[in-house]
Amino acid sequence: MLAEAGIVLTRAERENVEIADFGLGRLEEIGLQIVVYVNTDRVCAKELVLFPNQHCPEHRHPPVAGEPGKEETFRVRRGTVHLHVAGAGDILLGPGDQYTIPPDTLHSFEAGDEGAIVSEFSTTSRDALDVFTDSRIIRVPS
Amino acid sequence: MLAEAGIVLTRAERENVEIADFGLGRLEEIGLQIVVYVNTDRVCAKELVLFPNQHCPEHRHPPVAGEPGKEETFRVRRGTVHLHVAGAGDILLGPGDQYTIPPDTLHSFEAGDEGAIVSEFSTTSRDALDVFTDSRIIRVPS
Repeated sequence: MLAEAGIVLTRAERENVEIADFGLGRLEEIGLQIVVYVNTDRVCAKELVLFPNQHCPEHRHPPVAGEPGKEETFRVRRGTVHLHVAGAGDILLGPGDQYTIPPDTLHSFEAGDEGAIVSEFSTTSRDALDVFTDSRIIRVPS
Repeated sequence: MLAEAGIVLTRAERENVEIADFGLGRLEEIGLQIVVYVNTDRVCAKELVLFPNQHCPEHRHPPVAGEPGKEETFRVRRGTVHLHVAGAGDILLGPGDQYTIPPDTLHSFEAGDEGAIVSEFSTTSRDALDVFTDSRIIRVPS
């Protein structure tokens, strides 16, 4: 999907795509494929790839060490994304559309029928600290 | 160039591309075309477009208000970029390659013969505070 969209990865990136199934074992329905470009102690950038109708379950990024929690902007590159943000409702994003999710705010999202590619621009990612509403979820399974 | 690379912009973005000639009036040689996707008080993301052999002159992003200055990662999407970073030397970047420039570090860059598209992931941009080595340069002309 990334190659079709003209997004070039290095070999190391292609061999290290993160496959997140949230410990549920139902990847095609509930999951996310992630390429992390950079994640420093200040800035993070990723490409998120979603299969058709694949869903990322509701979660929030809590405050850490006196900082307000991860702030993330989702910019849709291909496909459509249905984004749900607590206090803001349902937001439909197509190619070129973007939305900034404030820190510590519950959100979930799923791709439309054609799947989606989303660029994520954010503060530091500390995925293991994400708080999911569904307590069965393990963000970073061992 | 962005359309050819499959990068979709909104109409508002297409109508608000920043044309930076640094006050020198020699845009095709010395300049930069910039689409700012997001610039909050924590995170910034842009696409930089460079014409063939176009050059962005040496500058640094100084500390601001107790913070260490802008940290930026350049990720090349199309074309080649010759990046020069004080203390690190000359770095040649092709599609899929990237480099993170530490805060307050002198750097300059230019595109190869085919021009280039570069995604920039960074902390907050405060362009008017950039310090250029060439004192004739005005980053944000009035």
